[in-house]
Amino acid sequence: MVVFVEASVMDDTHLDQFSNFANIKDKLMTFRDGKDDLTDKIDFIICMGGDSTLLYASLLFQQSVPPVMAFHLGSLGFLTPFRFDNFQDQVNNVLEGNAALTLRSRLRCIIIKNGELEESNKNVKEKESTNLLVLNEVVVDRGPSPYLSNVDLFLDGKHITNVQGDGLIVSTPTGSTAYAVAAGASMIHPSVSAIMVTPICPHSLIFKLAWVSFDGRNRQELLYGDSICAQDQMSDWFDSLAECLHWNVRKRQKHLDELTDLTHSSSNDTLDSLEQAELLEKDGS
Amino acid sequence: MVVFVEASVMDDTHLDQFSNFANIKDKLMTFRDGKDDLTDKIDFIICMGGDSTLLYASLLFQQSVPPVMAFHLGSLGFLTPFRFDNFQDQVNNVLEGNAALTLRSRLRCIIIKNGELEESNKNVKEKESTNLLVLNEVVVDRGPSPYLSNVDLFLDGKHITNVQGDGLIVSTPTGSTAYAVAAGASMIHPSVSAIMVTPICPHSLIFKLAWVSFDGRNRQELLYGDSICAQDQMSDWFDSLAECLHWNVRKRQKHLDELTDLTHSSSNDTLDSLEQAELLEKDGS
Amino acid sequence: MVVFVEASVMDDTHLDQFSNFANIKDKLMTFRDGKDDLTDKIDFIICMGGDSTLLYASLLFQQSVPPVMAFHLGSLGFLTPFRFDNFQDQVNNVLEGNAALTLRSRLRCIIIKNGELEESNKNVKEKESTNLLVLNEVVVDRGPSPYLSNVDLFLDGKHITNVQGDGLIVSTPTGSTAYAVAAGASMIHPSVSAIMVTPICPHSLIFKLAWVSFDGRNRQELLYGDSICAQDQMSDWFDSLAECLHWNVRKRQKHLDELTDLTHSSSNDTLDSLEQAELLEKDGS
Amino acid sequence: MVVFVEASVMDDTHLDQFSNFANIKDKLMTFRDGKDDLTDKIDFIICMGGDSTLLYASLLFQQSVPPVMAFHLGSLGFLTPFRFDNFQDQVNNVLEGNAALTLRSRLRCIIIKNGELEESNKNVKEKESTNLLVLNEVVVDRGPSPYLSNVDLFLDGKHITNVQGDGLIVSTPTGSTAYAVAAGASMIHPSVSAIMVTPICPHSLIFKLAWVSFDGRNRQELLYGDSICAQDQMSDWFDSLAECLHWNVRKRQKHLDELTDLTHSSSNDTLDSLEQAELLEKDGS
Repeated sequence: MVVFVEASVMDDTHLDQFSNFANIKDKLMTFRDGKDDLTDKIDFIICMGGDSTLLYASLLFQQSVPPVMAFHLGSLGFLTPFRFDNFQDQVNNVLEGNAALTLRSRLRCIIIKNGELEESNKNVKEKESTNLLVLNEVVVDRGPSPYLSNVDLFLDGKHITNVQGDGLIVSTPTGSTAYAVAAGASMIHPSVSAIMVTPICPHSLIFKLAWVSFDGRNRQELLYGDSICAQDQMSDWFDSLAECLHWNVRKRQKHLDELTDLTHSSSNDTLDSLEQAELLEKDGS
Repeated sequence: MVVFVEASVMDDTHLDQFSNFANIKDKLMTFRDGKDDLTDKIDFIICMGGDSTLLYASLLFQQSVPPVMAFHLGSLGFLTPFRFDNFQDQVNNVLEGNAALTLRSRLRCIIIKNGELEESNKNVKEKESTNLLVLNEVVVDRGPSPYLSNVDLFLDGKHITNVQGDGLIVSTPTGSTAYAVAAGASMIHPSVSAIMVTPICPHSLIFKLAWVSFDGRNRQELLYGDSICAQDQMSDWFDSLAECLHWNVRKRQKHLDELTDLTHSSSNDTLDSLEQAELLEKDGS
Repeated sequence: MVVFVEASVMDDTHLDQFSNFANIKDKLMTFRDGKDDLTDKIDFIICMGGDSTLLYASLLFQQSVPPVMAFHLGSLGFLTPFRFDNFQDQVNNVLEGNAALTLRSRLRCIIIKNGELEESNKNVKEKESTNLLVLNEVVVDRGPSPYLSNVDLFLDGKHITNVQGDGLIVSTPTGSTAYAVAAGASMIHPSVSAIMVTPICPHSLIFKLAWVSFDGRNRQELLYGDSICAQDQMSDWFDSLAECLHWNVRKRQKHLDELTDLTHSSSNDTLDSLEQAELLEKDGS
Repeated sequence: MVVFVEASVMDDTHLDQFSNFANIKDKLMTFRDGKDDLTDKIDFIICMGGDSTLLYASLLFQQSVPPVMAFHLGSLGFLTPFRFDNFQDQVNNVLEGNAALTLRSRLRCIIIKNGELEESNKNVKEKESTNLLVLNEVVVDRGPSPYLSNVDLFLDGKHITNVQGDGLIVSTPTGSTAYAVAAGASMIHPSVSAIMVTPICPHSLIFKLAWVSFDGRNRQELLYGDSICAQDQMSDWFDSLAECLHWNVRKRQKHLDELTDLTHSSSNDTLDSLEQAELLEKDGS
């Protein structure tokens, strides 16, 4: 059995005090985050720490992830179910094949900068992009800006809605118990196949959460047991949210050029000075 | 093409005024709710009304449901995407096979009265039961009782949690936009395969919602891409909810016999008179 | 010092076993709930039990309530801050005047049955009424009915809004941590002077809570430091809730007689048969 | 009547096109934000724009604010109840004394940098401070930091709780319908005298909102109609929140030095290497 540890472990002078460690030090293989590709080298991961340690381990594997056995060193975490105290028996037990598994989906995130939107087919032509598989969530927020963020949400090229607020969380079911739950999302078992969309402090009171299935299916043959769509699955559903629940509908502030006949006589005078006043507006209440 | 309508339609004297109806009346077949079994007789349902009309249609089919084309007669509903104004063209279009579908799961609900719980295997031996397939949700609530309801929730024979409050909603994704959303649940697209559990006004502040997958998988072979469970999928997850988020944990009121040494000297006197006081308690605050 | 206890305490045979109780039994005065008027007879209340015991004590005093010193016999309650173990020292301490106080407001509830609403002045002419002072809340809910309750909320004779859902809670700040918090309300310190209105599972997603001040002030002289109302305090605020936040606005289902020209040719035939369909609707989704 | 406008209005070349404006231009007085002190110069404010314009006007008056008549130029705002179309009649009407008023409280915010906390009396000795009266809210958030913010909340020198999450909003009732409502707060009428505390995406699920009265009262004489505090008003209430509702209680991650006997034999070896693992943790999930 070949064991890999992070290269920084080898440089830890504390460990040299212990004869047990010296005995195995030469047999350890090392890797460096961002430098060594672990794909196809690792069959089994033992993770010790908290949930963040496991998130870090997940980032190291940007293709498939080997099975992870995660020990919590403090209190029980969402991602770290094993107690450390009798770790030897537990590891042996798992290596002998006695284990139940939870498959966890990850999100592939592609960040496109300087992209061009081709109006004809609503596809984005990328110029520069980042590609990342994440286990919990992707967050788009306003960062240090004092202004509301304004995010357009598309699904399979179709515009779903616009979110004004502190931002938007797109998460896996695993991520539902992380940031999303703090933003008011419900908790969802990791075995459910879904993508979760959660607004952060949305300006519109009724942007409640919308779940969309992970594997969007589109047109299908006519089968028994179905209800028939007027447009398609997603359009029908989001249209009915808007219509039935006033979902994420908020009257926009009228622009000044939509305002007519504000005064009895000299409306033009007034309108121009109003533009002055409007410039003072910063965040609204 | 053979058309079935509810038997009560034939008795409607309003319809006799219209010559159009008289022309087709003899060709219509009828059925009565609760008396006629429609299974295997119907290939295609046209539903006119609101969401409740479609819920009623769903109840008529307790095995598989034929495809439903649902027209809203007022405003758009969650289950009724078609506009009625050019219904003839739309029906023709669907009959020619031009249709997208949304498959909607239903919940099979078995109500067991006078059942006996066999402790050995945690199975309930039923004496009398009702069996129903529902499209939206099952609700267990306190009805006219002024007291909190107290519901134990089991999943595959395992006790998950206890809910104190006004009640509990178990719903399909379709039902997520019905009663569940009013109780604070998130909205979930009908194509997601999940069962939703939503408490109604829970006594414990942190019974947030828990989604559980529709198809619970248990022990599996050890495969790549998995995280390994300490117990099993469901136990691990609910344990971590309780530990990490204090999920649905609420300190119970101590019983009197747990109270010791309440007074300096004559505790027995006091304890007995306390029982008196306790009887006055009704609902707590 | 004259001590009153509930009459039922004297009949408790358990107490007779204790010589301590026999020594004082003859000196105790008694009262019966609903029969004896305690007003002006009691200067100081000692309450032993949980929050419900204190709610019961509050009901006994339908005019002013004497100061209450409330001991929790199990775990700490919202209304019962004192520990019982050294009760003698604590009672002595309070009787010597060393005490901080929390003033708690109560709601006067008048239930009018068979009343007539005089349209001219929007006052209700009562025929039969109940009058009660409550410490926590008044709840109007749908009880055992499967239908949504439909409650009209008036404030000082002005119609504020209509609530469709499981019901409505009107509570004091003290009651904010009881039923209201389970229905999603925020917690409010008992020293704040306000009435809290909380819907229970509202049909409209955006009926968030509205606080209204306990002492509604109306027209006032023009003073420095104020903003001027277009109508009056309450009308301005509720109008802006509806306009800015779509507060409790939900498109009503159109009535059939509002539907016109549903079909190309024979709309009358259709309309009449639709009435049939509408009758089948039960709860909507 | 002397009219003040912002100095920038005079420089607006658009206005010079209108003869109406030229006629009054010479009679107008001007002020510059941050340079001219308007205190005691203004008796009456007319505000034209949206809610933000009124927030700006409020900032100009850091002592008392003259009565404000606020016109909305687009759609109705929370702070701008008047329609502009017949402004002349409406202004005349108000100047004649026909007006209802809403008194709105503001928060005095003192930001202390480089302060020293004197442990003896829990007072902060300021070295540098900013002093501001705000109409809506003060927000403490994590800005561009990827880490949770960690805010300690004190009330009258007493530590109330610690908030981990995106941040904390302290708002007036006026501000309850601004940022706070997006963070899940309830709406509160501006006439209620209270300060509102709302966490932003709190790490602990049960930091629900806590209202605290604006005018905290402490020790008082013993009066009829009161309940007696075990400690004081605020301590009793916050203690019962923690005890009864598990309010803002979350098990802290254990520190490594609290972990003992993690392994059967060579625990020291393990502990030291664990410190390595812990360093990898960033935010937790």
